[in-house]
This record gives sequence, C-alpha cells and structure tokens, in this order.
Amino acid sequence: MPLMRIDMYRGRSKAEIKNILDISYQVATEELHLLPRDRYQIVTQHDPEEMIMLDVGLGFDRTDKMLVFSLTSSPRKDADKARFYARLVKELAAHANVAPSDVLINITSNTKADWSFGNGEAQFMNGKLA
Amino acid sequence: MPLMRIDMYRGRSKAEIKNILDISYQVATEELHLLPRDRYQIVTQHDPEEMIMLDVGLGFDRTDKMLVFSLTSSPRKDADKARFYARLVKELAAHANVAPSDVLINITSNTKADWSFGNGEAQFMNGKLA
Amino acid sequence: MPLMRIDMYRGRSKAEIKNILDISYQVATEELHLLPRDRYQIVTQHDPEEMIMLDVGLGFDRTDKMLVFSLTSSPRKDADKARFYARLVKELAAHANVAPSDVLINITSNTKADWSFGNGEAQFMNGKLA
Repeated sequence: MPLMRIDMYRGRSKAEIKNILDISYQVATEELHLLPRDRYQIVTQHDPEEMIMLDVGLGFDRTDKMLVFSLTSSPRKDADKARFYARLVKELAAHANVAPSDVLINITSNTKADWSFGNGEAQFMNGKLA
Repeated sequence: MPLMRIDMYRGRSKAEIKNILDISYQVATEELHLLPRDRYQIVTQHDPEEMIMLDVGLGFDRTDKMLVFSLTSSPRKDADKARFYARLVKELAAHANVAPSDVLINITSNTKADWSFGNGEAQFMNGKLA
Repeated sequence: MPLMRIDMYRGRSKAEIKNILDISYQVATEELHLLPRDRYQIVTQHDPEEMIMLDVGLGFDRTDKMLVFSLTSSPRKDADKARFYARLVKELAAHANVAPSDVLINITSNTKADWSFGNGEAQFMNGKLA
C-alpha cells in the first residue's frame, strides 16, 4: 500500500520497465514515508489505439513514452502528494529518459480496513501493521 | 480528469475503438462539464474468460460487445452523473452499435489534490487549473 | 457491484481462471451479502516483469500464483470486509491451489449514485435496486 498501477504504451524492454518500477518505488518510499518493502506495482501495456492522453489545456506534448500512475492508498497528506509528484517526474527524467510532460499521476484513497496483504488478514486492523 | 478506463472483449478494430473513445469523450465533456482537452482514456482488451458480467437481477442480456466504463474523478453532482449515464448509452447505441444493456458504468471519486497532469505539479492546487 | 478486478501472472488455463472467478464470486456473495447475479469480474494477466509484489515486512513468500483482488464497491462494514478476506483465502487455498500468502486484497468505496448497470440508468437511485 499504496497499490501502484502504471499504464504505458508497448515497446519498452523488460529492463526499462524494471527501472521505471524501481524509481517509482524508491520515490514513493521516501516521499510518502512507506514502510519497508511496501511495494505493490502492476504494469499494463497498451497498443497505441488504447491510450489517448491529452493535456486539459496545459500545453503538454505527450509522446509514446507517456506513463500513467494510478495509486490506491489510505489517506496521504496533500503536501506529501505534492512532493511525490514533483520528485517522481524529476527522477524519471534524470534516470529513465521520461519527460516530465509525459507523466500523469492520480491517487484514490481508501481506508486501513480496505487492505489485506496476505493470509486473509486485515493487517492494519489486527495490529500486525501500524 | 476524469481518468476513463474502458474494459472490453477483444475483437474490435482500431477504428471501432477510436469511435467509442471519441463518443465517450464528447459525452463526458458535455454532461460532466469538462474543461477543453480533458481527455484521459485507457482501454484494456480481454479474452472471453477474463470478463464475466452478469446483471444483478435486472434482466440484461450481455453480449461480447459489453463495455465497462470506470471513471476516477474529483466529485461530481449526482444529477450530472445520471445525465452522463443516460447520454453515453444513447450515443453509443446510435453511433457505435453498442446496446444500452451492454454498458456498465462506475465512478470513483478523489480530490483535486490527487491529480498531477504533467510536470510533477498538482495543477488544481497551484492555480494552473480551476 | 462490487466490480472485482483480478490481476495475475500469465500461465493459468481458462478452467483455472474460471475456477478462481467462481470461488471469489461465491465468497463475495456470501460474505458481502450481495444481491443475486451481482457478478462483475475483470481479469488482467501480466508478464513477470509487469507485477512486483513484496510483503511490507510481513514475511510472505510470493509466488507466480499471486492474485491481486481490487474491488470497487459502495461502502461495506469493516466486519464484512474482514470476513470476506479470511474466507476468500481459505476457499482459494482449498479449491484453487493458491496459498493464502499469495492473495492481496484491496477495496475502494464509492456511492450508490456511482453505478449504472445497464441502459444508462442509475439503478440504486431510481428504485430498481435497493
């Protein structure tokens, strides 16, 4: 938690995908203050006709390197979200050759009771996670 | 925003997919009062065994043209949601040969701080979007 | 409702997928007290590099049989969620050869106005569903 879904166009190598996942996991850990090994990432790759990403008038020139990050998480502070957004695009630009204008991020909040990480337990409710 | 995910069975042409995306974008723009170019659409296509869609007792006869629209959005008025549902199935029936009984729609709400459209900024928080 | 998304690694047969969907539908019906035929399930299969699932320090040894259940639902009681988690892993272990440590579950809540099951109607709002 968060569960991080990443949608992208097909065409990246396995190593490029791993690199994007490594970077986004590291940034989330630091900026969202995650517990160790709180890594739940799912990539779905798409053909060109399956993703249409415009700019809501902000002037972004999207390319086929576009990444859409959709996080499901228990509530986070707005300031942490803002730091996560800024840091994520910075690191992806520096280390994964993804332009900041090619990164869309959205977050949906749920609650601690909404998670079972394994064994059918709600670990935030039974005290195994704080 | 909204981010619109569309799940469908495999088998449509690129032109058919584009048509469905064009229609649903146009309806969302009008009935949800979207900003210009507020278009964020992701299609995932599925094999038959990957989607099971029944009718919760309402008597719908689902076909392999079934479409599932899952929107993530900052809060919308119930009346706007209702108009979006009604108009979407009407236009899809008229212009994409999709029966009204083959359209499932669901919406999940988040907040304005939950969106970064590019450049790592939270554009609803820093004043670039209102 | 709920809409149940299941992410898994590629490699299962159609019969194995159907069995997992049948089990999870049955458990949801009983433990979340669903209406009859309230079955909306979408599977997305992934290559190995597309899913990274660690354990948030809980010591789970994830395998390539890992299942991620992501439910979107109108609000449910915490006690019902806990029963759903526990029962789902029990039945999957008993009847689908999936280890309890290989099951991640998360739930996101929306409202009754957020659903149209077909025909462009909001059936929880117009009285066709209670």
